[in-house]
Amino acid sequence: MSDDVPARALQLRSLVTDQATIQVSLESVDVPVPGPDQVLIRMEAAPLNPSDLGLLFGGADLSNAAAAGTVDLPVITAPLPPAAARAARARVGKSLPVGNEGAGTVVATGSSDAAQRLLGKTVAVAGGEMYAQYRCIGAAACLVLPDGVDAIAGAASFVNPMTVLGMVETMRDEGHTALIHTAAASNLGQMLNRVCIEDEIPLVCIVRSPAQVKLLTDQGARHVLDSTAESFMDGLTAAIAETSATIAFDAVGGGLLASRILTCMEAALSAGSPFSRYGSAVHKQVYIYGSLDRSPTELTRSYGLAWGVGGWLLTPFLIKAGPARSAAMRERVARGLTTTFASSYAGRLSFVEALQPEAVAAYASMATGTKYLIIPNGGAAAGAAS
Amino acid sequence: MSDDVPARALQLRSLVTDQATIQVSLESVDVPVPGPDQVLIRMEAAPLNPSDLGLLFGGADLSNAAAAGTVDLPVITAPLPPAAARAARARVGKSLPVGNEGAGTVVATGSSDAAQRLLGKTVAVAGGEMYAQYRCIGAAACLVLPDGVDAIAGAASFVNPMTVLGMVETMRDEGHTALIHTAAASNLGQMLNRVCIEDEIPLVCIVRSPAQVKLLTDQGARHVLDSTAESFMDGLTAAIAETSATIAFDAVGGGLLASRILTCMEAALSAGSPFSRYGSAVHKQVYIYGSLDRSPTELTRSYGLAWGVGGWLLTPFLIKAGPARSAAMRERVARGLTTTFASSYAGRLSFVEALQPEAVAAYASMATGTKYLIIPNGGAAAGAAS
Repeated sequence: MSDDVPARALQLRSLVTDQATIQVSLESVDVPVPGPDQVLIRMEAAPLNPSDLGLLFGGADLSNAAAAGTVDLPVITAPLPPAAARAARARVGKSLPVGNEGAGTVVATGSSDAAQRLLGKTVAVAGGEMYAQYRCIGAAACLVLPDGVDAIAGAASFVNPMTVLGMVETMRDEGHTALIHTAAASNLGQMLNRVCIEDEIPLVCIVRSPAQVKLLTDQGARHVLDSTAESFMDGLTAAIAETSATIAFDAVGGGLLASRILTCMEAALSAGSPFSRYGSAVHKQVYIYGSLDRSPTELTRSYGLAWGVGGWLLTPFLIKAGPARSAAMRERVARGLTTTFASSYAGRLSFVEALQPEAVAAYASMATGTKYLIIPNGGAAAGAAS
Repeated sequence: MSDDVPARALQLRSLVTDQATIQVSLESVDVPVPGPDQVLIRMEAAPLNPSDLGLLFGGADLSNAAAAGTVDLPVITAPLPPAAARAARARVGKSLPVGNEGAGTVVATGSSDAAQRLLGKTVAVAGGEMYAQYRCIGAAACLVLPDGVDAIAGAASFVNPMTVLGMVETMRDEGHTALIHTAAASNLGQMLNRVCIEDEIPLVCIVRSPAQVKLLTDQGARHVLDSTAESFMDGLTAAIAETSATIAFDAVGGGLLASRILTCMEAALSAGSPFSRYGSAVHKQVYIYGSLDRSPTELTRSYGLAWGVGGWLLTPFLIKAGPARSAAMRERVARGLTTTFASSYAGRLSFVEALQPEAVAAYASMATGTKYLIIPNGGAAAGAAS
């Protein structure tokens, strides 16, 4: 191992205590020595994705977040509401590393050829525990970033891009030809819009403000509906009639949105058809992949019996898709990292900055345009907006 | 056509008016002359299934049902609550025949061999419009009842038996090995219990009273849970842990029951496993096939992302299963009509009796033990309990 690699380094951790509070802190841990097929990556950038925030804060009430710890090793604490505490029972007392994905430079490798070939390369990786100054991982998990793509641009090479492609592939696998997306002005939503334009897939975007309608329309989206508008249901029904979109991916989860989508699908499908007591025979599907609204999903079931609502997660999809198809998806992502699959960030945060209450309030809001990058080895200067 | 067959006969009809009321009445209609491949059946018995009641009364408020018409041709009217009126918009002004299935004697046939071979036979049929004194239908739709099975015993040869077998086949198709059933003390639920005992499939029954627990336990059911008991969730979790039931068929639909089942599946699956932020990877499925509770389905989504909830209906299942498999299912039903697939009824009603408010109150309650048979050609004497 190179002399530059320290024996110990920092890792961001999340702990639920038996007092129903969350503690997010920095722990000094041993830097691992890579096994024969492993590499050690000095992590240079890791995005704060919504899926990370769930593990990081466990549904805590962040309006009551408090700062603790020291200047160099700050700690954020926040109380868990009863429902969140119940859901977090299995993790009480376990200090969990966080961070689904990131990118950095390979600074040490194991003895295998595959590992040694990566020495000095800038690579993107997924697999958890990425909010760490050093991450040891199998060489096979590394995506070598193409020339001209640095760790900042490659930090989000997996979660959003593969999710977007997974949605499109799921749509095709299940026999649909168009799709609906909610929270569609998100980084992921904008990416999905670019992929659908490239692949000529009709996309119906659902957003929550006129400003978001404009944002997506300016990026070439043809069907963008504001769910807060009075004409929402009529507009959505018309867009479904035009596109034949019978599958939706929903990041909101709670409330009536999924049910409204199914209602509009049914209205679009049954328009002009004779009365059928069991509703249209065409299967209508909503997959919930996020939980921006944590309240229960309410289904009015006013859309016949040919419908389904379910959870959707990338990993099981990739397992089902198999290695060849997953590899083809990855290659497409690698080719488009600075174009189709580019992410944009509101700013960059060092570990210390990420553990300040004001920063937490900004990135944990999950509002459009509040996505941040963590720079695990960055000092305070890393805080400038990108 | 035989001289015994009248030129006109009665048919039961349901009409939603533009005043948001339902009218159930008897209409005198022409008795059809069978085409070459058709037969004319004098209908002797037709069950009032929950699926018929939905079409018959369209969600009307039957506590305000009123009698109208004449002694010989009574009419039932009832107001539709706003949500039911909205759902029934497509059928306003259309007088709809009702009755999914029934049995009777073939009294006339078309010219084909297949049709003529059925003359004089007692047959069971499905296909709608069965609450009629005469029903003309394709010869291929007829199930000739085995010796010793009369029209009363064969009246319910399709909907419940094929639904029960369809559930078991769906369970197998989707890779599950045990199942959960709600409203499990129903005629259908008792039948499913007998099939599961025959096929050695672990079944978890959910009912709504201690009396129903006893009813099913007396019939050999091993896992019967009362959803009104305080220990329900713990008992259900234990039963799922023992049986590995990861698919449920739910006749209730509304409220939290489907979500509770998923919660207990997840608790049973994740017991003893390390914490996983996305929940257990095993797919958990609830199919809603009825709507005893018409309120919205509420999903708390506290069971990871490997779950699905959807509508389930027999007809699309049979289409997917294909003719050979459907025929094999039908043959199994025919062999067991007086045993495994027997139905029991609270009583028999002539057309005139079925249109009395007291009778409607009894059969439309859909409570366990209130299933009735309609005897389309029966006089008042047919009213004795069977």
